[in-house]
Amino acid sequence: MKIIDSIVEMQGVADSLRGLGKRIALVPTMGYFHEGHLNLMRIGRTLGDYLAVSLYVNPTQFAPTEDFEAYPRDFERDRKMAEEVGVDAIFCPDSTQMYPEGYQTYVSVMETTKNLCGRSRPHFFRGVTTVCTKLFHSVKPHVAVFGKKDYQQYVTICRMVRDLDMGIEIVGAPITREPSGLAMSSRNVYLRPEEMESALSLSRSLVEAKGMYEKGERESRVILDRVRGIIERHPHAKIDYAQICHAATMDDIPVIGEQAVLALAVWVGKTRLIDNHVFGEPLDIDHEDSNRGGR
Amino acid sequence: MKIIDSIVEMQGVADSLRGLGKRIALVPTMGYFHEGHLNLMRIGRTLGDYLAVSLYVNPTQFAPTEDFEAYPRDFERDRKMAEEVGVDAIFCPDSTQMYPEGYQTYVSVMETTKNLCGRSRPHFFRGVTTVCTKLFHSVKPHVAVFGKKDYQQYVTICRMVRDLDMGIEIVGAPITREPSGLAMSSRNVYLRPEEMESALSLSRSLVEAKGMYEKGERESRVILDRVRGIIERHPHAKIDYAQICHAATMDDIPVIGEQAVLALAVWVGKTRLIDNHVFGEPLDIDHEDSNRGGR
Repeated sequence: MKIIDSIVEMQGVADSLRGLGKRIALVPTMGYFHEGHLNLMRIGRTLGDYLAVSLYVNPTQFAPTEDFEAYPRDFERDRKMAEEVGVDAIFCPDSTQMYPEGYQTYVSVMETTKNLCGRSRPHFFRGVTTVCTKLFHSVKPHVAVFGKKDYQQYVTICRMVRDLDMGIEIVGAPITREPSGLAMSSRNVYLRPEEMESALSLSRSLVEAKGMYEKGERESRVILDRVRGIIERHPHAKIDYAQICHAATMDDIPVIGEQAVLALAVWVGKTRLIDNHVFGEPLDIDHEDSNRGGR
Repeated sequence: MKIIDSIVEMQGVADSLRGLGKRIALVPTMGYFHEGHLNLMRIGRTLGDYLAVSLYVNPTQFAPTEDFEAYPRDFERDRKMAEEVGVDAIFCPDSTQMYPEGYQTYVSVMETTKNLCGRSRPHFFRGVTTVCTKLFHSVKPHVAVFGKKDYQQYVTICRMVRDLDMGIEIVGAPITREPSGLAMSSRNVYLRPEEMESALSLSRSLVEAKGMYEKGERESRVILDRVRGIIERHPHAKIDYAQICHAATMDDIPVIGEQAVLALAVWVGKTRLIDNHVFGEPLDIDHEDSNRGGR
């Protein structure tokens, strides 16, 4: 496995691979890998001849008040984990290359980013779409894999790639969960033991919502009332948002139609967790007490 | 010469060429070719194995009040002219492909676009940088040629390409002028005979400014007062802006240093003309009366 820290070198490698007719797959990450990242890499491995994983904690998607400095990092651990999954290269440029003095260009997706995380974190998506554009121009992938835990991000990247004619196939990967149901996230390391029950309220409320949907409920308000009730009874949990949106536009919808996603962002102590469920898709959480919070 | 009106086809051609190790040159245009465009193509011809000219009147860089509908178009004439210069392909996508329903992604260069035309035409540069990104993703050029008549556009595209790691060489081509000194522009067809003298005031004032600079003048205010005086004595001319800016940042500068550009936008009747002079660079206008307006 190669470690490539230069944009120009990465572009040269990509050009050579493309010249040889090789298919390049990219998994963009901010590192501190967990099983969710490894699953993205395993999917990427099946989609290309060459699998690049970018590892860059992108400052432009954090607000000054957010956890850019504290974001967990462990390159040596990440390197070993990626190698074991069969990654061909880790692309890890530094910020002096990514955002040199005088940097001033941004890519914005206007509509899919207005709601949910775009409302709570106003600079977030502009940072994400800009850095992904730069990573795409460096790695020149044929296909890129994004996790659907960040569902709004996945939809936004799909829209950007289509709008800007990037010619990249975007593959959305299912959420990887702990046995408890907790969606895997690098930020889970922030959770304190006494906060764990509160953290589980997200996935438990999604299971409850799925059950209501399967019994025929289609009113967003009714489902959301139940979801909020499940989360709010936990002392460490504070809802940032709990909304049901059209799964392609990210607009709020009062009635669940063909494409709908229940999206959650919840502060658990000082940690902001997100999770979601696309109605009609699987939600594989198998814990006996999955409905406990809803009773 | 091929006419390619499909983005996907253009991308396929570009991938094939790159696979063969061919160097692709692009000249982005809005058509209605004049000698200025042909000079860009001649330069492009020397820079690549394959020369593509894009021809697309981009609606997103026009305000609703501007001349998008009236903008002159003559595809048959353009086709012949391009073929004679040795262009390999005209890429001419339509707007249903370029901006399909739901389109919502924009590329913005924040600083170089604040002044001059960015002030007069607030949506202009976002439209230009977005469409150029799309054209670059379609044609996948190694090198692209931009005319320096649109000097701020040239600087902005250079900045965008560098910031977003597009890996494209941007070549700026000198302004092509009529024997009278008038900078060539597709919009010159709008000029009425009685407006021609007023139109010439732009290039005449640039010649005067160049002369002052060569005699040692470095105060922007002194040069601009003279420039404004030359233009304003013409009955059909109304200055939109006349400014001296840093040639890389486009910020106003009170004193001319190493990199400085005098940029003009002038309404002549209903036609908005732009012109500029980068101090220290050639300005080849050879008319006996070039200083007449300044006397």
